[in-house]
Amino acid sequence: MEDKVKISIDLMGGDNSPEKTLNGIDLFAKKNKNKNDYFFYLYGKKDKVKNKLDNLKYLKSNFEFFDTKITVSNELSPLAAVKKGKGSSMWESINSQISLNSDVTLSAGNTGVLLVMSKMILKTMDGIDKPALAGLWPSEDGMNIVLDLGANIECGEKNLIDFSEMGSALYQSIYPDKEAKVSLLNIGTEALKGTEILKNTYNKLKMLDGMGDFKFIGYIEGNQITSNKSNVIVTDGFTGNVALKTAEGVANFLTKNLKNALSENIISKLSTVFSYFSLKKFKNRLDPRKYNGAIFLGLTGPVVKSHGGTDDLGFYYSIEVAYKIAKGKLINKIKKNLNHTKKINEKG
Amino acid sequence: MEDKVKISIDLMGGDNSPEKTLNGIDLFAKKNKNKNDYFFYLYGKKDKVKNKLDNLKYLKSNFEFFDTKITVSNELSPLAAVKKGKGSSMWESINSQISLNSDVTLSAGNTGVLLVMSKMILKTMDGIDKPALAGLWPSEDGMNIVLDLGANIECGEKNLIDFSEMGSALYQSIYPDKEAKVSLLNIGTEALKGTEILKNTYNKLKMLDGMGDFKFIGYIEGNQITSNKSNVIVTDGFTGNVALKTAEGVANFLTKNLKNALSENIISKLSTVFSYFSLKKFKNRLDPRKYNGAIFLGLTGPVVKSHGGTDDLGFYYSIEVAYKIAKGKLINKIKKNLNHTKKINEKG
Repeated sequence: MEDKVKISIDLMGGDNSPEKTLNGIDLFAKKNKNKNDYFFYLYGKKDKVKNKLDNLKYLKSNFEFFDTKITVSNELSPLAAVKKGKGSSMWESINSQISLNSDVTLSAGNTGVLLVMSKMILKTMDGIDKPALAGLWPSEDGMNIVLDLGANIECGEKNLIDFSEMGSALYQSIYPDKEAKVSLLNIGTEALKGTEILKNTYNKLKMLDGMGDFKFIGYIEGNQITSNKSNVIVTDGFTGNVALKTAEGVANFLTKNLKNALSENIISKLSTVFSYFSLKKFKNRLDPRKYNGAIFLGLTGPVVKSHGGTDDLGFYYSIEVAYKIAKGKLINKIKKNLNHTKKINEKG
Repeated sequence: MEDKVKISIDLMGGDNSPEKTLNGIDLFAKKNKNKNDYFFYLYGKKDKVKNKLDNLKYLKSNFEFFDTKITVSNELSPLAAVKKGKGSSMWESINSQISLNSDVTLSAGNTGVLLVMSKMILKTMDGIDKPALAGLWPSEDGMNIVLDLGANIECGEKNLIDFSEMGSALYQSIYPDKEAKVSLLNIGTEALKGTEILKNTYNKLKMLDGMGDFKFIGYIEGNQITSNKSNVIVTDGFTGNVALKTAEGVANFLTKNLKNALSENIISKLSTVFSYFSLKKFKNRLDPRKYNGAIFLGLTGPVVKSHGGTDDLGFYYSIEVAYKIAKGKLINKIKKNLNHTKKINEKG
């Protein structure tokens, strides 16, 4: 058991749960044949879960199910939800990291509630003032990390440096063989541009560059988030959230227009048949479900948030993320990076 | 002459100028047969311009050319460029609004230099602290306005309200028959979300809603910039610039991936032939050149900035924008809106 990655999952959060969460889990079991490699702690309402859980095709063992009787309404504010949420599937799946020593928690429930509950149960890591929400972005040669995506509206210099260290640790827990390359999101690439906070952070990151945890690339602009110049893009939660949602909006707008253009008349409909395979490949490469799974960084344990509206396959990908960061020892890597910065600070 | 729209153009700014600027002007003359409707004041270096200008196909009269001997290097900082730039084509095309009473200035030169020169020559409008840079975004049913796109990194409540009034005036100078619908860009749509500045601006705009100048929609998130919920999207220059560039980046990333998918093998290549017309239509609808032309708002006269890297057609579209806002009496509309707000403020 000690060598297995222990993943705690809230079966009830998000649309169409527990169907999609259970199907996603079953897909994971189908793809990962090595049963010595993982173990699930599953939390949900017995009457809604039991029947389906007993009849999954691939997941036959390798899990333990816990009945949670409390459900938290989506209508409540995060704080009210947290007050009433003790004993819910979300609460118990987080608490599982303490009570059962599980390695990571995954939920598709409300982001605000998950963030507040996680902070309350797991507590903020020593040396971190503000935990951050990090996301995965498709990039020219794979995947980039962007943080913060909305946990903190206003961020100071220390927060942005912490985000750089935590984001690098996250990148390397997913890609152990690659170098983390940090950049700061700004509105120009010259050293003179940006707010005072950005300029101070820039100078500090320049000092940390090459000290071992990451390479510092400098400023990048919004059009380079998908480039391979850097793979850890650091910004405050307001800017990060606007960038993420603008990107989603533009992607939807373009694909909708593309679909319309391809179904307008008989010739274009015919063309769709011919382009079916190429478009499928295009869609497949950039399928947002593949980038599902935002990670709360800066707590004593890792918590992964799946998109509430995703489907079976999307939820499966968020399990993959949870599995990888636990396997890649994310928390140890963050601690190492933070200690390193601390030592450099004490010296300098 | 009094009834003609007088457009002053810097022929030298941007890549491949004066070729593209002159070709764009000629295209405008081709499409606008009514010679009583417009007049160009053109500024550039005689030895580079004269030959081409004399041999344009459609623009035979309706313009006056001015030789400007000074060129400003792109290497200089905006402030240094402005110091040395008196008498340059950019300077003279702005000053033309004072010396020749022209209605609008258009340049594809450096944004920073154009902004500083414009402020210096035209001066900020009474009642405005910070002029803003507004851009055009494709939307579900036409075009939206987004501002500020980067002129002001930090904006207070008064600035954002000014942007709402100026953006609405801009929208209605381009679309005289449509209602301006203002929204504030935020990271959630609930009234509780966002910074203190956003919350205060929200409350103030709620008060101004329905008072005549625009409808106030409330907060929107980044994924709704392209929606038809609102058509004037207000934000600070840092956030606006990141959103704009992120959108450009995602659009380029997607179209590049689409192209690759469609040219990978013989079947997909064949499919491209079949989808040629539908894809052309798609491309045409979303061609960034159609949205070329950012507008400096808040000076005593309007200044339009064309993308430096655009081509003949893109430059033509920015002339269209300059023509429309002059024809639509942008400056009068802004003054009217600001006076209106002032009166409401005095009352309330």
